[in-house]
Amino acid sequence: MKSQKTLNTSLGIISGGQLGKMLSIAAQNWNVNTAILDPEESCPAAQSCDELYIGDYKDYDNVFAFGKSIEIIILEIEHVNVDALYALQAAGKRIYPSPQILQMVQDKGLQKQFLTKHDFKTSDFHLYETSEEIKEACSNGTINIPFVQKTRTMGYDGMGVKIVRSESDLESLLAAPSVVEDLVDIDKELAVIVARNASGHLKCFPVVEMTFIEGANLVDQLICPADISSDIAKHAETLASNIANTSNLEGILAVEMFLTKSGEILVNEIAPRPHNSGHHTIEACITSQYEQLLRAAFNLPLGSTDVKIPAVMINILGEDGYVGQPNYEGLEESMTLEGVSFHIYGKQETRPKRKMGHATIVNKDKSKAIEIANTLKSTLKVTA
Amino acid sequence: MKSQKTLNTSLGIISGGQLGKMLSIAAQNWNVNTAILDPEESCPAAQSCDELYIGDYKDYDNVFAFGKSIEIIILEIEHVNVDALYALQAAGKRIYPSPQILQMVQDKGLQKQFLTKHDFKTSDFHLYETSEEIKEACSNGTINIPFVQKTRTMGYDGMGVKIVRSESDLESLLAAPSVVEDLVDIDKELAVIVARNASGHLKCFPVVEMTFIEGANLVDQLICPADISSDIAKHAETLASNIANTSNLEGILAVEMFLTKSGEILVNEIAPRPHNSGHHTIEACITSQYEQLLRAAFNLPLGSTDVKIPAVMINILGEDGYVGQPNYEGLEESMTLEGVSFHIYGKQETRPKRKMGHATIVNKDKSKAIEIANTLKSTLKVTA
Repeated sequence: MKSQKTLNTSLGIISGGQLGKMLSIAAQNWNVNTAILDPEESCPAAQSCDELYIGDYKDYDNVFAFGKSIEIIILEIEHVNVDALYALQAAGKRIYPSPQILQMVQDKGLQKQFLTKHDFKTSDFHLYETSEEIKEACSNGTINIPFVQKTRTMGYDGMGVKIVRSESDLESLLAAPSVVEDLVDIDKELAVIVARNASGHLKCFPVVEMTFIEGANLVDQLICPADISSDIAKHAETLASNIANTSNLEGILAVEMFLTKSGEILVNEIAPRPHNSGHHTIEACITSQYEQLLRAAFNLPLGSTDVKIPAVMINILGEDGYVGQPNYEGLEESMTLEGVSFHIYGKQETRPKRKMGHATIVNKDKSKAIEIANTLKSTLKVTA
Repeated sequence: MKSQKTLNTSLGIISGGQLGKMLSIAAQNWNVNTAILDPEESCPAAQSCDELYIGDYKDYDNVFAFGKSIEIIILEIEHVNVDALYALQAAGKRIYPSPQILQMVQDKGLQKQFLTKHDFKTSDFHLYETSEEIKEACSNGTINIPFVQKTRTMGYDGMGVKIVRSESDLESLLAAPSVVEDLVDIDKELAVIVARNASGHLKCFPVVEMTFIEGANLVDQLICPADISSDIAKHAETLASNIANTSNLEGILAVEMFLTKSGEILVNEIAPRPHNSGHHTIEACITSQYEQLLRAAFNLPLGSTDVKIPAVMINILGEDGYVGQPNYEGLEESMTLEGVSFHIYGKQETRPKRKMGHATIVNKDKSKAIEIANTLKSTLKVTA
């Protein structure tokens, strides 16, 4: 399907998950056509894009072939063939994030080194090639239990993360080059999304706080705005802005942070793409993270990120024990709840804890939104 | 392009203008697939639907062929072949609005008769078959200048409306069966959108006020919420609710009203579809008119219509004197304005006063939003 291009350019998105879908929807409001590269014909964004190219975003040839006829390319995932992106960049394509930033964040070791090099505080860490080296470091006292092991590459949604709380956990270390970092004594987990365009214009979204599903590293509940002091909020936004400037970001960057019990802010991870911690911006903020990314990528003035109304976001995850065609049990009953916006991604198969959708609950009274979110969690189940 | 259907049904939309586009976008959030019937391959909704059927919605065969494989059909335009809709209804299809309501509103004479029959106040009117009869009625004092002539059928966006202010205007009466109504001494024009589902659950959106472009009958500026007393707001909402109940509405209905200088509310026109006076609900209300229509059509609980933040909506119209491929002059500069969301419909050709897009300006301070809207109007021009 074709329609005339308002902004006189073509936009390619790699890949076609829910983030790509919501970005395509934002593009439709401006009548910008989108082409998507994804290995799956039935990916979530298939419904929302103008053209779908079936291909592997880890494959050099597929990525280069997709990008060569496109002017602007936006990534919604990090595991993209970076050599192909360098080649496309050399061919004059505009890519958000740049392959330089992507390469740095793809490897959590390099990401940690980038942060510490520029004096952004993170938890202390060491890099190891094998699990044997980690055990050795434990024995000789270089590192102490408890700690967190993260594989340097290919982790997502809690995959590639192992929390070692006891000696016996050492037997199930992940067998891959890893970052080992101190387990931080956390008061809250915070996130700030920052956007920056080629002109250097920069804007942060208000700080959110998140709780995670025990043992899964998946957001259980996000609250906007975070219940923190204005000093801490300002500190978190300054940190995110500084990382964006230092990395010469063009596009959007999610900065996940730990607020420690002693009131310190440590950077946990950065992700230079639209992010789960910004889903609520569609309903809660004047500009959504998706429109903001379009503004940044087109080098347009960034939009206001002010909160219109407080919000809670919950992920709609596949129930444990079910694999197959999804059944959204309780969806109709859930629609009786006040102020809930549903986003159903359209994934063909549910799996335990797979992100099948999300819901944003808005309410002028934030505590009421939290209450409704809790009711929603017990009402809506994705089975098969 | 295909994706799995969450709500286990197929949705057809007649036709593919901007209202159909915004409805398709709302459907994407729920992963509901949409098929659209429109005569133009490059219609605005082409970008947002899953399947586009090229055909004439005024043609019996085209409408019936489109609808026969679809379970739920929503109209975004009134000039649809009503016989085909009756046939589809008889075949068990669910149609919003029903052909019964559609037939009544398609003819402004029948619409007026429906309203007066049920004691909904409207301006006084007479029906005439020809312009000669109107002149005769003027001569014999049945009607008095000034008055408004509206053709009974096929009017839209100010087409088919003639305001007669002097004897000389009688020479340019419209040559078609018409409603002639008193020219009302208006304080404000108001509108209420009301949704109702098959279970009889009903919700109104907050009353908005509108100013119109002199002589064009096109919305110049819409303000939400309207600057009226709570008594008048309540009266307007009750009126809209009563019309919805009386007409046995399933779907959505826009009720345009005149608030007279004596404080009386008269019904101007009703439109059983998403409406220009509800565009702002995307950004300003908890549920948009488009999602609300989906909820009504799927017989789901209706969503909250509370205002998240005050808003002003302006139509982005083709400048006088330009016909051709549109050029959105000043779009980038317009993006520096605070709190503006742009909706560019993607129409291939601009024409004088054609609706090419709209912008919603949100601001906690409504007067500030009005000010920004005025700046925007002088900044953004659609030329060719």
